[in-house]
Amino acid sequence: MSTSNRSDQKAKVEREFGERETARFEAFSDGVFAIAITLLVLDLAVPSSTTTAPGELGQALLVQWPSYFAFILSFATILITWVAHHAYCRALARVDGLLMFSNGLLLLTVVAFPFATRVLSEYLTTPNGRTAVAAYALLTLINNLSWNLVSFAFKPERRLLRPDAPAATVRTVRRNAALAIPLYLTALGLALINQYVGVAFLTAMWTFWGVMAYRDLNEKVGVR
Amino acid sequence: MSTSNRSDQKAKVEREFGERETARFEAFSDGVFAIAITLLVLDLAVPSSTTTAPGELGQALLVQWPSYFAFILSFATILITWVAHHAYCRALARVDGLLMFSNGLLLLTVVAFPFATRVLSEYLTTPNGRTAVAAYALLTLINNLSWNLVSFAFKPERRLLRPDAPAATVRTVRRNAALAIPLYLTALGLALINQYVGVAFLTAMWTFWGVMAYRDLNEKVGVR
Amino acid sequence: MSTSNRSDQKAKVEREFGERETARFEAFSDGVFAIAITLLVLDLAVPSSTTTAPGELGQALLVQWPSYFAFILSFATILITWVAHHAYCRALARVDGLLMFSNGLLLLTVVAFPFATRVLSEYLTTPNGRTAVAAYALLTLINNLSWNLVSFAFKPERRLLRPDAPAATVRTVRRNAALAIPLYLTALGLALINQYVGVAFLTAMWTFWGVMAYRDLNEKVGVR
Amino acid sequence: MSTSNRSDQKAKVEREFGERETARFEAFSDGVFAIAITLLVLDLAVPSSTTTAPGELGQALLVQWPSYFAFILSFATILITWVAHHAYCRALARVDGLLMFSNGLLLLTVVAFPFATRVLSEYLTTPNGRTAVAAYALLTLINNLSWNLVSFAFKPERRLLRPDAPAATVRTVRRNAALAIPLYLTALGLALINQYVGVAFLTAMWTFWGVMAYRDLNEKVGVR
Repeated sequence: MSTSNRSDQKAKVEREFGERETARFEAFSDGVFAIAITLLVLDLAVPSSTTTAPGELGQALLVQWPSYFAFILSFATILITWVAHHAYCRALARVDGLLMFSNGLLLLTVVAFPFATRVLSEYLTTPNGRTAVAAYALLTLINNLSWNLVSFAFKPERRLLRPDAPAATVRTVRRNAALAIPLYLTALGLALINQYVGVAFLTAMWTFWGVMAYRDLNEKVGVR
Repeated sequence: MSTSNRSDQKAKVEREFGERETARFEAFSDGVFAIAITLLVLDLAVPSSTTTAPGELGQALLVQWPSYFAFILSFATILITWVAHHAYCRALARVDGLLMFSNGLLLLTVVAFPFATRVLSEYLTTPNGRTAVAAYALLTLINNLSWNLVSFAFKPERRLLRPDAPAATVRTVRRNAALAIPLYLTALGLALINQYVGVAFLTAMWTFWGVMAYRDLNEKVGVR
Repeated sequence: MSTSNRSDQKAKVEREFGERETARFEAFSDGVFAIAITLLVLDLAVPSSTTTAPGELGQALLVQWPSYFAFILSFATILITWVAHHAYCRALARVDGLLMFSNGLLLLTVVAFPFATRVLSEYLTTPNGRTAVAAYALLTLINNLSWNLVSFAFKPERRLLRPDAPAATVRTVRRNAALAIPLYLTALGLALINQYVGVAFLTAMWTFWGVMAYRDLNEKVGVR
Repeated sequence: MSTSNRSDQKAKVEREFGERETARFEAFSDGVFAIAITLLVLDLAVPSSTTTAPGELGQALLVQWPSYFAFILSFATILITWVAHHAYCRALARVDGLLMFSNGLLLLTVVAFPFATRVLSEYLTTPNGRTAVAAYALLTLINNLSWNLVSFAFKPERRLLRPDAPAATVRTVRRNAALAIPLYLTALGLALINQYVGVAFLTAMWTFWGVMAYRDLNEKVGVR
């Protein structure tokens, strides 16, 4: 094999290595997202058959509506975060320490969602509701801050991106992540004033992110 | 590199990108299916050793037959849904917003199965049995409706399919999904009249889907 | 493109399709194995801090030795089953209905292990121990029977194997699966006579499978 | 096909086979890491709404700080172990019995973390705290010993490595794993003397491993 062939070979090996690294990084993240989203089901409690009178099960299930609501809200939150994560990681060519650990922090907040969801389910309609919603909003805030950190790690000058990564998109994601911080702080503040206003704000916010993600996905495949 | 080479290159990059997207979409869905099916085991309660007299464990385990039945029914339901999902996704070349979110709704119902299964286990043989079976049938109905939405997203004119996707198969799946709606409504109605008739109908229905999936898989590899 | 090129193309597409199918089948199975093996940790109960006197935690943890033993036994069982499954699936070129559903049955028994493990943990040292070990042995028996069914689906004349699959190995696995049935029945019988003899027999059996798997893996890479 | 072509073909098949094996080995390990890290959330208990007075939820959540601390410590432990595992497996060309089973032992300790974490959460601030921290330190010690076994399986003379694997790196990992044993023993000893000193030592140790992993990842992509 000639020297030039060897050098080509080396570049190819390095590129493949980067791709394999990134694939495993994504696969691990995907795994954590998929597991956390599925563990949400454990937050749905079954009314005990020893305390539910005949004909009362329907009522006993309906009275748990905050559980179903919290389940759906957190499901949507994790799903939309996954869609965004997924779209973003596509631009990656390699992974460095900052990205690995800021992503680790992001995953930590994802993993904590089933806990915050149970707190929300249990307390939304009680006098402790404001604290419960504030705790939930706090987790979404930390989630957003770690997303900002991940975004920082994606800065083109840090050279983790593919050569063909759309610089404009990467910049937009970073800017949006920063612009969202005040929204999350607002949600936290509103929660401390009134639990229902706080939770309505969070729901509206995630609905908006969902619509944005929907349009984004359509644009990518040329549907409008 | 010449202009024509660049354009070829771009088409190749786009195709590979679509494939990678679809692969990750499938992998995430597979992950959720695999986790939800495994979490069903948490619905099987172990009789407490402090209340089970010597020589009574066999009896205490057998008396839980509704748990085992519900476990097997839900396992089969999720497995068959996965087989169908898997067969269907093969036709995909890319993912848009509607598909992502209708699939998200489908996954939400899959994730909720361990909950409905626990309700069914706990209440099947009690006076609240009709409500329990109706709740389970309702979940399968929503599961089917989201499957109809996914099927709609697969419409060839929406251009998410591979060029070589078998149009007839895709059409058949869509038609079958629509035709099944009255069956799910019947299951729900029967459950409200008699829990055992309702659950027998659900079991028969999934057995039928299972046989269909079995034949389908055989046909694909040329076994008959 | 010439006709002959098209036909080559079609054969290639079919082969790739079979490979993709098999890969997804394996990935789903792997997922279930990985989740079931990890859920075993939920069988390890933490002694309540309200009933554990100062200085008594060590004792309270040690007294739970049947939990640790059952945890390790089931971990080894699932790990070895995965190694065997994994080795076997390598020979696959495609998946038909029988394989999909016999594999589904196998996965159902894998998923049920955390339940049988909790029964074993809770009752091994109680007067109900024989029933507990017999229930565990029964699950391993059903696991083995579904493995026999999977092995049947692998018969070369059923044409699911790769052209280069080692026919002798596939035959050996099928024969061994059949030969093991009496061993599992023995374990079940012994459990009904004496719980400790039954569990010792199961442990010895899985140790033996482990040693066999160890040697097999070494042979494949030319270590002896 | 000529004889030489056949032999080339065979070498290629063997290499691809080894790669596929290794990929599945890594994917299974990744799955277990991802699930264990996510199951940690189940260790976070929600204060019961029936015993929490109005306005007391914040306090009730804060009083659980040992849970959050243990959650974060174990999350970091599993994440860093995964990063190391991942970096190490990259050097692999094939898997033999020793590697499969020493890796199995490593995964067993990973799976056990949610249990040790619950023990730590429940007992850290109680008079039983020293035993709880010692139990946790013992698990990290066994984790390290199995890592030493995995490292031994990677010895170049055992011929599991890729031809292009960086021999120096592999040697460094093996040496570091051995050098860490006294550190883990120290943690165990300190825990038996004072629970807070023990846990502080463990935290410092993992922070150090984290910094090392961070620098390592940066070096690989040429960031310093």
